[in-house]
Amino acid sequence: MPHYVLTLSCPDRPGIVSAVSGRLLRHGGNILESQQYNDLATDRFFMRTVFAADALLPELQASIGELAHDFAMDWSLRDRAQPRRVMLLASRFDHCLADILYRWRIGELPMQITAVVSNHPRDTYRHLAFDGIDFHHLPVDRGRKAEQEAALWSLIEGTQTELVVLARYMQVLSDALAARLAGRCINIHHSFLPGFKGARPYHQAHARGVKLIGATAHFVTADLDEGPIIEQDTQRVGHHDTPEDMIRIGRDIERRVLAQALRYWLDDRILLNGHRTVVFAV
Amino acid sequence: MPHYVLTLSCPDRPGIVSAVSGRLLRHGGNILESQQYNDLATDRFFMRTVFAADALLPELQASIGELAHDFAMDWSLRDRAQPRRVMLLASRFDHCLADILYRWRIGELPMQITAVVSNHPRDTYRHLAFDGIDFHHLPVDRGRKAEQEAALWSLIEGTQTELVVLARYMQVLSDALAARLAGRCINIHHSFLPGFKGARPYHQAHARGVKLIGATAHFVTADLDEGPIIEQDTQRVGHHDTPEDMIRIGRDIERRVLAQALRYWLDDRILLNGHRTVVFAV
Amino acid sequence: MPHYVLTLSCPDRPGIVSAVSGRLLRHGGNILESQQYNDLATDRFFMRTVFAADALLPELQASIGELAHDFAMDWSLRDRAQPRRVMLLASRFDHCLADILYRWRIGELPMQITAVVSNHPRDTYRHLAFDGIDFHHLPVDRGRKAEQEAALWSLIEGTQTELVVLARYMQVLSDALAARLAGRCINIHHSFLPGFKGARPYHQAHARGVKLIGATAHFVTADLDEGPIIEQDTQRVGHHDTPEDMIRIGRDIERRVLAQALRYWLDDRILLNGHRTVVFAV
Amino acid sequence: MPHYVLTLSCPDRPGIVSAVSGRLLRHGGNILESQQYNDLATDRFFMRTVFAADALLPELQASIGELAHDFAMDWSLRDRAQPRRVMLLASRFDHCLADILYRWRIGELPMQITAVVSNHPRDTYRHLAFDGIDFHHLPVDRGRKAEQEAALWSLIEGTQTELVVLARYMQVLSDALAARLAGRCINIHHSFLPGFKGARPYHQAHARGVKLIGATAHFVTADLDEGPIIEQDTQRVGHHDTPEDMIRIGRDIERRVLAQALRYWLDDRILLNGHRTVVFAV
Repeated sequence: MPHYVLTLSCPDRPGIVSAVSGRLLRHGGNILESQQYNDLATDRFFMRTVFAADALLPELQASIGELAHDFAMDWSLRDRAQPRRVMLLASRFDHCLADILYRWRIGELPMQITAVVSNHPRDTYRHLAFDGIDFHHLPVDRGRKAEQEAALWSLIEGTQTELVVLARYMQVLSDALAARLAGRCINIHHSFLPGFKGARPYHQAHARGVKLIGATAHFVTADLDEGPIIEQDTQRVGHHDTPEDMIRIGRDIERRVLAQALRYWLDDRILLNGHRTVVFAV
Repeated sequence: MPHYVLTLSCPDRPGIVSAVSGRLLRHGGNILESQQYNDLATDRFFMRTVFAADALLPELQASIGELAHDFAMDWSLRDRAQPRRVMLLASRFDHCLADILYRWRIGELPMQITAVVSNHPRDTYRHLAFDGIDFHHLPVDRGRKAEQEAALWSLIEGTQTELVVLARYMQVLSDALAARLAGRCINIHHSFLPGFKGARPYHQAHARGVKLIGATAHFVTADLDEGPIIEQDTQRVGHHDTPEDMIRIGRDIERRVLAQALRYWLDDRILLNGHRTVVFAV
Repeated sequence: MPHYVLTLSCPDRPGIVSAVSGRLLRHGGNILESQQYNDLATDRFFMRTVFAADALLPELQASIGELAHDFAMDWSLRDRAQPRRVMLLASRFDHCLADILYRWRIGELPMQITAVVSNHPRDTYRHLAFDGIDFHHLPVDRGRKAEQEAALWSLIEGTQTELVVLARYMQVLSDALAARLAGRCINIHHSFLPGFKGARPYHQAHARGVKLIGATAHFVTADLDEGPIIEQDTQRVGHHDTPEDMIRIGRDIERRVLAQALRYWLDDRILLNGHRTVVFAV
Repeated sequence: MPHYVLTLSCPDRPGIVSAVSGRLLRHGGNILESQQYNDLATDRFFMRTVFAADALLPELQASIGELAHDFAMDWSLRDRAQPRRVMLLASRFDHCLADILYRWRIGELPMQITAVVSNHPRDTYRHLAFDGIDFHHLPVDRGRKAEQEAALWSLIEGTQTELVVLARYMQVLSDALAARLAGRCINIHHSFLPGFKGARPYHQAHARGVKLIGATAHFVTADLDEGPIIEQDTQRVGHHDTPEDMIRIGRDIERRVLAQALRYWLDDRILLNGHRTVVFAV
């Protein structure tokens, strides 16, 4: 039996769970997982439900659509077997790119990679097997950033990319592109935000003498390093660790934090709650 | 509006969520939190729901009872404002006892402490303020363990104790008492089970040369150190750590693991699934 | 045989270890532990050595003093059996104070507590056994902070206090007092610095939507929340955690981070390296 | 200036540090790092020193050799610029192999890979770039294990391999081969030893209902899963994690634990202390 994922958020009021589960039952859906969260501060309700059904009948979709209208829901309903379309952007450092490709290859990350895009040439990644994934070299030449972004956007549209992953892509997106990709562009920042925003965070961390370093996966917004946080982790460092040691230790944190955020997104576990996220982690 | 907690488990089949949420809605209950888990291996369904309602009407209780019968549910429905009745057992080392008392005093652990019981005299804990909590000294004399346990059981019954916490109580319960307390007696074992069962686990850990030590909170069963695990944690140690260092480091792990398990229990977050647990942690 | 701790730092040059170990050997000292660190960026050398000797002979002290002069060392030599004199300052929240007192009582923290000082009255801590430790209530009245600090300083001097621990003492020290206590006043800040400096860090953390919260033990300087960091730790939180939940979770982090920093200090494991620290953690 | 690493262990007695540092000084060595450990239980002394010197003069080597004789030291002295010779053994699952190759390629693991050996054919790893590293397919046919091991041993000898890494190599070495590789063969076991020895540890962990899973890097000995432990780590799991989820989560733990153990070994940070290890981690 195919599995479907329904996610929704709406103003809280009695009867949401009953209405949703009632409709699913009526159309032959059997709930396998369900998670809910009421944000008491904003009075908003969030839900993610996985259910099995013979097929995603038009009647079921219409029925949920009707409900969504009544409850003023933001919602999405998706066939779990249908892989999401994801584009990977990288620059010179390829540890996150290599890690995502490896996890994808062995089946950890069920997705369709629409393209790998870099501002560095293909040869930068000569050790990585791309298995037929399209590679695009989009260099960012001085004064021609707008053209590069236009090419990138055209590629995103042309490939029907649903999610863009900045896998240590070291270019700042323009406000316009960030706005266009709102809620569907994940970046990995190499610090435990909000500490050490901006450039060279490990050098900043070393100068401040912190005892833990971290990494942060967040949605990209026009406000640099201020987007909604999806996932973070930290690791212990000491006085003996140079900025170079921190960069090495940080690579491990970055790749596991970004992979985790990507896994959550692919499984529809991340919902936006203003400039924060609801992550149904389990 | 008062809050209520409904927990249940039953054989999985379509319609459970819809039936439960429908009944709650009909009787004026507004769901605040809900978590579910389907164990696909055993085809059993687990659910915990917190809802607000004007009062726990007899009609609502009857309605849920009816449902429970139809779906063959193990279930419980509880007023969250009604503190659980908990008895604390300790021996010579009082770090877990002191920690639980402190957390209880500042409001972290909403419970009614029915008594502190020890096989050591009151003076052992002369630095701890008991705030009027009854203390019972039940020494375990050679050959008179059955009598001590009879006194203990009578105390448990007499105080309507719902949960017994072995806060580093260094006496092994008899099979009979363990059976009587099935599912309502939590122990803290000072190792990362199943490693280092039995006595002197930190000395065992030192001898084996492990690089992390841990602690395990579990339900007590007749099978020593084999009961369903509720919570575990670990901490890094090194070659320089003696068994005494491990005992010191372990105290911190033990007290936070036991407090966490107790908090889960008090908030009805632990359900039994055979000899394993479902812990709705969030 | 008594144990002694020698700590030193000086400009790096060949022969330091040889000179130090040679002098110790000549005077009958047997090295038990030794740790060194060369900061290649500043070319400064740091060392901590524990040695056993029949007694701390004047000849040994003179010999080390001579060496210290030749190598331009900052140094200290201490009998490990001589407990350090520590003053504890607290305010309304007493979880760090209670934790330190407990650890001290069971022998985890070998120190002489010279006094507990609070801007709140003794009754605030009525559940804590002070075991004869002096308590001083030094309220901070509007416009009379200078007087309060004068009384505090007089107490520090009068009791020959070596270290002042701000155990969630919620008063900002004046620049003058901070300067006087340079290198011997440890504060616990309830955030993972440099994130969320200043007031109400857990509310700041909640508003930003971070997925981990933390605490930081640091030396107090005139520059608020900018002093050299000694120890930090973090713990996972989620969208479901309110600021109040974070405060609860944070209490556990704060007390273990502060206790760890204090333990390091008592064992002469912390050396200053500009506005950073060298912590010989093991 | 080249850097050298001296490691040694010997019965403890006064004067070791002084003698070693004195000889280094006399021959122009400047100590950059030094760590020591006295095992008070066995009265054995362990030391690791990194020093800079113009060259490793025969006089210096002879001088240390003389000292080693006097103090009955096990010792090694090595030019840090000389990469160690390491052979990688793998089976069907290549996450550890891929990870080590990646870290080696970007310069995290300074070593000479003498060969990749597998009981599976080269095509198993078709996505991995071997960059000219020799690959040997040594299948283990029924009843012909001795022959396979003979071929393996001949390869180890022929390539002057110093360390053999079992990167999820799913064959148990014979006692004879394990003995020959004593102290220079590292295995990654996919459990937190001593829990879940033997086969299918994640299935064992799932059946027991643990709340953390782990991995262990250890030296291989004839006693299966009982060799000296080098490094361990754990990660949180829950009731919702199937054995397959644990296998996925475990891959991350395995690869970082094995890489860490390998890094320690390459930097001469691991000394044997009976059936335990001294790891100078920092």
